[in-house]
Amino acid sequence: MGALLVFQTDFTKKEGAVSAMYGVVKSVDASLEILESTHDIPRFDIWSASYRLYQPILFWPEGTIFVSVVDPGVGTSRRPCAAKTATGHFIITPDNGSLTHIQKHIGLLEVREIDTSRHRLVKNGNQDVAIFHGRDVFAYCAAKFASGQISFEEIGPAYPVDETIMLPIVDSQVKPLFAQGICEIDDPNFGNIWTNIHTKEALANGFAYGGLYRTQIDRLGEVIFDKALPLVHTFGETSAGDPLIYNDELNRFALAVNLGHFVNQYGIGYGNDYRVTFTQT
Amino acid sequence: MGALLVFQTDFTKKEGAVSAMYGVVKSVDASLEILESTHDIPRFDIWSASYRLYQPILFWPEGTIFVSVVDPGVGTSRRPCAAKTATGHFIITPDNGSLTHIQKHIGLLEVREIDTSRHRLVKNGNQDVAIFHGRDVFAYCAAKFASGQISFEEIGPAYPVDETIMLPIVDSQVKPLFAQGICEIDDPNFGNIWTNIHTKEALANGFAYGGLYRTQIDRLGEVIFDKALPLVHTFGETSAGDPLIYNDELNRFALAVNLGHFVNQYGIGYGNDYRVTFTQT
Amino acid sequence: MGALLVFQTDFTKKEGAVSAMYGVVKSVDASLEILESTHDIPRFDIWSASYRLYQPILFWPEGTIFVSVVDPGVGTSRRPCAAKTATGHFIITPDNGSLTHIQKHIGLLEVREIDTSRHRLVKNGNQDVAIFHGRDVFAYCAAKFASGQISFEEIGPAYPVDETIMLPIVDSQVKPLFAQGICEIDDPNFGNIWTNIHTKEALANGFAYGGLYRTQIDRLGEVIFDKALPLVHTFGETSAGDPLIYNDELNRFALAVNLGHFVNQYGIGYGNDYRVTFTQT
Repeated sequence: MGALLVFQTDFTKKEGAVSAMYGVVKSVDASLEILESTHDIPRFDIWSASYRLYQPILFWPEGTIFVSVVDPGVGTSRRPCAAKTATGHFIITPDNGSLTHIQKHIGLLEVREIDTSRHRLVKNGNQDVAIFHGRDVFAYCAAKFASGQISFEEIGPAYPVDETIMLPIVDSQVKPLFAQGICEIDDPNFGNIWTNIHTKEALANGFAYGGLYRTQIDRLGEVIFDKALPLVHTFGETSAGDPLIYNDELNRFALAVNLGHFVNQYGIGYGNDYRVTFTQT
Repeated sequence: MGALLVFQTDFTKKEGAVSAMYGVVKSVDASLEILESTHDIPRFDIWSASYRLYQPILFWPEGTIFVSVVDPGVGTSRRPCAAKTATGHFIITPDNGSLTHIQKHIGLLEVREIDTSRHRLVKNGNQDVAIFHGRDVFAYCAAKFASGQISFEEIGPAYPVDETIMLPIVDSQVKPLFAQGICEIDDPNFGNIWTNIHTKEALANGFAYGGLYRTQIDRLGEVIFDKALPLVHTFGETSAGDPLIYNDELNRFALAVNLGHFVNQYGIGYGNDYRVTFTQT
Repeated sequence: MGALLVFQTDFTKKEGAVSAMYGVVKSVDASLEILESTHDIPRFDIWSASYRLYQPILFWPEGTIFVSVVDPGVGTSRRPCAAKTATGHFIITPDNGSLTHIQKHIGLLEVREIDTSRHRLVKNGNQDVAIFHGRDVFAYCAAKFASGQISFEEIGPAYPVDETIMLPIVDSQVKPLFAQGICEIDDPNFGNIWTNIHTKEALANGFAYGGLYRTQIDRLGEVIFDKALPLVHTFGETSAGDPLIYNDELNRFALAVNLGHFVNQYGIGYGNDYRVTFTQT
C-alpha cells in the first residue's frame, strides 16, 4: 500500500477532468488509493484552496499526500511544487498562494520545484497540451511519489521556503473585551462565517459563553452588519432564526444563524476586505 | 480488511468537513475503505436522512457500517448511537429520527449510546469544539468499530430499541381500487415523487399496468394535483412530457413526467403533509 | 484485486441510487474498488455520456471497466451491452448512443449483449422493478466481470460492432486557414467550449499561435458569435475577461474567456447544431 493521496481542485466533477487525473494515478500504480477532499473549490479561488488545504490536514495521518489544483495561471511561470509541512504531511500544488494558510499556521519544512522534464506525463499526445497540469504534472508526479517510485528529493530541486508565494492575510487582534479579525472563509452550505479570531484568546480576554457581544462587520470601511449576538456552545441554545457566535471546528469565533444561513441572510463574503469586530454591548 | 464504511451527511463536499472526517478514519486505520452514499442530504432534513439510509441499505452486504450525520441538534442532549438492524447492518448516527425508516421497515435488534468518554477523538484542541460530532464522535467511533479495535458492545451501553426517536409517518391504506399514502420522498434530480404505497398491494387490489387512475395530491387538505395518469412499466411507454405512475426502485407507486420533472412542473413536495390518493377514473 | 471499476451516470449523488449500485458491487465482491468519474452528466443526455466516456478513457490503464448509465430508455428494447475497445478498455452501458465517441475515435473490437437471464440481480423483490438497470443489471454484471466471476464472453452473445447505436456527429473540415467544426461539448464549470477541430491539423494548415482568427458560431444557420480571437498557448497570455482560442486537453481547438465563462457570456451550447468556423481576420 502506497501513501494516501487526497485531491482537491476547482474542476467540479461535472465533466471528465477529475476522471483523467484519477486514471493517471491508477496507470502509475493501480494499488494507490484515491481520496477526495473537494472538487468544488470556487473556480480560480486560490484563497479558498489555501484555506481548504489547511482546514482538514491535521486530521489526516502523517505522510498523507495532498494534491491541490486551483491553477488559473497554468502554463505560466508559477512553479509547480511539492511541499513538506512541519507535521510531516505533503502537498503537491502550483506555488501560487495555495500554501498560504499551511505555511502560516503549520509551517513548511521544505519546498521543491517539480522537475517537469522528468515528471511530466507523456501520453496520448499531451505534450502539446499546456492547460492541464492537474493531469499531466500534479497527479502524475504525486502518484509516482505516493507509490515510492520516486523519493521526495527526486521530485526536483529544493528552493527557499520563504520564496513560497504567500497571500496577504490581515491578522486578528485581541485585547480585553475587544476582538478584531477578518471573515476568513465561509461554509457555503450551512452559510456560516468563520473568522480568524482564536476563541481561546478571546476567552482569555474577557469574552464568555452566555455573554452578548456587539458584532460589527465592515467591508472596505462600510458597516454591513451591526448586531448584539450571544456567544453559545451549541446552536440549540438559541431559537431557530437567531444569529449567534460560536466556536468553530478549528477553534475560531464563527457566525451563524440557527437553522438559517448567515451568509445569504446578511450578504457577507470572505477575505481581507471583510473585517469583523466583537466588543462589549 | 475491515468492515465497509458508508457515509452520508448534509455537509456537501464544498468545504473541508468531509475531508476531516475521512482523515479521522484513515488516522484510526489507514486500511479502512471509505464509501460515499451522499453528502447532499438537504441541510437539517432528518426525514431525508432517514429515507436515504433505508433506500440502499439492503443492497449492501451484511456487516456494512453506515455513518449518517444530519445533526441540527449537535451538542445538545440527543443521543449519539450505534444501531444494529435485523439484517445485520450497522448505523452510527445521532438518534434524532434518522433511524425512523429503518426501524419501521427493517427493524432494529439493538441500539447503543456511544460512550463519548471513551470514543471521542482528542486531537488538535478539538476538546473545545462542540459542533462537529461528525468528525469527533461519529467518524472516529465508526472507524474504531470497523477496524475491529472495539466490538459493537464496547461502543457503549445498550438502551431499549423502543426509545429510539421515531418521526411520525402517515401509513398507506389500500382497498379495492383505492390507494392512499404520502409523497414520501422525491428524486431531486429526475424530479420523481416516490409514495409509500406498495405496488404489490395495489395490484392485488385491482390496479393494473395499462390502466388509467385518478391521481390526487393534497397538501394539508388543499388539492394541488388532480389528473388521470397511466400506470406503466417503463417511461418509454408514454410520450415525452406525459405524467405517469410507475413502480419505483423499492416497489412503491411513484409519479414522474417522462423526460420531464414532476416535482418542478407541479410544485409537489414530500412528507406527511403531501397526501396522495389513487382511484378509478 | 479485481479490475478497476469506474462509474458515470446522470443520477447525481443527491439521493440513494448511486449508493445502491455501489452496494451491489460490494455484495458481489467486497474487495472490488469503486472509482467515480462523474454522476453529474446532464440528465437524459446521451451525447454527453458518450463524450465523457471518451474524454478520460485513454488515461486509464488497459483493462479498466467503465460503467455508464444514462438510460432514458430503461426497460425498453435498447440493448444492455458490454463493449471492448481497440485499446483494451471495457464499457458496460445501455447501447443507446453512449458508445458513439469511443467507437468513432478509438474503435470497438467486440460488443456483447448482456444476458439478463443470467446477469440480472435478484434481490429484495427487485424482479418487479423495470426502471433501475443501473443497479439491477449494469453494476451487477460489471462487478461479476471485474471480480473474474465471469469472463467477457460469458457476459452474453456478441453482436456485430456496426449494429452499435451511433449518434450522428458532423465532422470537422480543415483547409488552408479555414477550420470548421462543431461546438462538441462544454466544460460546464469553467464555461469553455471544446470543438471537434484537431489543433495539429489546423496548425498544419496555416493557423499559428499568436495569430488572430475570425471565429464565427452559428446555430442552425443563425450567427450567434462573430469575433476575432487570439490563438494562445495559455490563458495567462491574455487579459482577464478576454475571449480566446486554445488547445484543449484532447488537442482540439477550444474557446474560453480568461477568468470568465464563455458559455454563459455568449450563450453558446453544444452539439451538431452549433457550428464553429475559424478563418483569417
